[in-house]
Amino acid sequence: MSNSTSPIVCVVGATGMVGGVLLRLMEERNFPVGELRPLSSRRSAGKMISFNGQQVAVKELTADAFDGADLVFFAATGALSREFAPEAVKRGAVVLDQSGRWRMEPNVPLVVPEINADALENHQGIIAIPNCSVTGFAMVLQALAQVSPPTDVVVTTFQSASGAGAAGTEQLREGGEGRAFPRPLLGDVLPQCETFLENGYTTEEEKMLHETRKILDLPDLQVTMTCTRVPVEVGHASAMLVTTKEPVSVEAARQAVSDFPGLELVDDPAAALYPTPKDTAGHDAVRVGRIRLEQGGNRLWFWQVTDNLRKGSALNSIQIAEELLSRGLACKAKTN
Amino acid sequence: MSNSTSPIVCVVGATGMVGGVLLRLMEERNFPVGELRPLSSRRSAGKMISFNGQQVAVKELTADAFDGADLVFFAATGALSREFAPEAVKRGAVVLDQSGRWRMEPNVPLVVPEINADALENHQGIIAIPNCSVTGFAMVLQALAQVSPPTDVVVTTFQSASGAGAAGTEQLREGGEGRAFPRPLLGDVLPQCETFLENGYTTEEEKMLHETRKILDLPDLQVTMTCTRVPVEVGHASAMLVTTKEPVSVEAARQAVSDFPGLELVDDPAAALYPTPKDTAGHDAVRVGRIRLEQGGNRLWFWQVTDNLRKGSALNSIQIAEELLSRGLACKAKTN
Repeated sequence: MSNSTSPIVCVVGATGMVGGVLLRLMEERNFPVGELRPLSSRRSAGKMISFNGQQVAVKELTADAFDGADLVFFAATGALSREFAPEAVKRGAVVLDQSGRWRMEPNVPLVVPEINADALENHQGIIAIPNCSVTGFAMVLQALAQVSPPTDVVVTTFQSASGAGAAGTEQLREGGEGRAFPRPLLGDVLPQCETFLENGYTTEEEKMLHETRKILDLPDLQVTMTCTRVPVEVGHASAMLVTTKEPVSVEAARQAVSDFPGLELVDDPAAALYPTPKDTAGHDAVRVGRIRLEQGGNRLWFWQVTDNLRKGSALNSIQIAEELLSRGLACKAKTN
Repeated sequence: MSNSTSPIVCVVGATGMVGGVLLRLMEERNFPVGELRPLSSRRSAGKMISFNGQQVAVKELTADAFDGADLVFFAATGALSREFAPEAVKRGAVVLDQSGRWRMEPNVPLVVPEINADALENHQGIIAIPNCSVTGFAMVLQALAQVSPPTDVVVTTFQSASGAGAAGTEQLREGGEGRAFPRPLLGDVLPQCETFLENGYTTEEEKMLHETRKILDLPDLQVTMTCTRVPVEVGHASAMLVTTKEPVSVEAARQAVSDFPGLELVDDPAAALYPTPKDTAGHDAVRVGRIRLEQGGNRLWFWQVTDNLRKGSALNSIQIAEELLSRGLACKAKTN
């Protein structure tokens, strides 16, 4: 398929879990695609994927596959992104990267459009998508910052199996050992996401600290966390206790969440109304409930749930691409 | 069965989940039982239960069933306990109550033997067992208090289905709606344990504050929490962030946990070693891991897992009974 006025779009990892959601969301949102180039490892090359009613052959990921491309979505490993993202940029494309490889590079914007779309203005070819446990979390903090800036956050996450991709979902469904998690996940809770560092935190936990500071542009924000994996297929939840510079009332916090684009307030304890992973899966909005003050103090609790495949990854990258197009920041090779 | 030197023991709720574990633990521990009287609602009366190789008929719970009893374990609802515990006491028995009915009464000791066994000395017939999410949590805080007293705790719990009894386990296994939880639990996380109060907290959450203060005898301790239900059969976990009066090092905290009776340190991140609900189920010890300092601060994280049916309820009540016997505080009717 080709359309001279719409961008040429590559999707690296098109046969993966996030890649699949990305393609479905591009259809749902009528994202303009002049030509779609699904790319993958040699193993999956040759497979057919469906897009806008047509069958498209998956090609092997090579540097030359980016020739003439405008937008390249990377929904693959950090290793692939390290090797191939610069190749795409060299060929004039803008890269939207889901992996952790580029997020903390100073010249790479790390973007949640509802928070820091303006950071896109200075991109140098690569734009990073935050970790799937960070996006919704940062959005709640940014909403609250409209009332008073957060200074300290204690967070415990409940992360679903699909956060580790198709292998994660498979390991949960099959119930046994697998390659996604260090032990069976079904019927258990694992206080480990990704791998442990010397300081006793996991790489996933450190991301919550550093990425949140970068996205919110609050380098002194205190964030400490325990990240866990729970036997849920889709939807990352977190219980967040937030200290703000000035005290914020529950009513003001609820209003701030209601007013913030991309957040949905689901908060009526009397009716047992709060978001859960299962009822948030498949929804674009980050859902927030259980907003209340700590007993006898000023810190505020939030219960936040994000579809990790949508706003936590694929949706966020498409929204960034839409923002780039509307700001004239993509298709560099053609507009420069 | 009757043995003149051993206590006459009633078990109210003998056909329930905690009642069943209680009977198995009495066997395991060779708890001295002169005569066992399993009691239950009329619905379950007449059933046979096995105890120490014999079949014993379950009798209907009536006040007269306590005649001559020394120890009465209540593993039933607060409503039954409210009605029948005073009847047992009136007949000279000592009551060990698992329900929430008596815990906060000033003249009722709320006991975890490793923490406050001395509180038993002043009992007036009823002794309360803490809520199953509180016991392990309070033990970690007490261990830490041996180094420096905790002043503020932020905790998020991951509570298993069996915390709501057999109906909870059943609802989880069947995967659908049920009477234990407000919605299906399988494949989801519910940020609700028990019922909501006006202040936005659940009754379960309020217990964590008030019971912990009472057990630790720290009336000013700040505790704030989010309690959740996770799709796990047995084992309550919690992620705890603790502020202490004086800073405590990770090494000192690990040592304090190791030294504390009833706690087991399972903490070697480099080997991906930490406790989980599944591997703690069936164990008596409360297991603790992931001890680390918050990034750039002095608060300490703990990941604590308790078998909610054992140390969280049945085991704790048997340990109290053992303590009563060794202190000569049971069998009041006979010794007075």
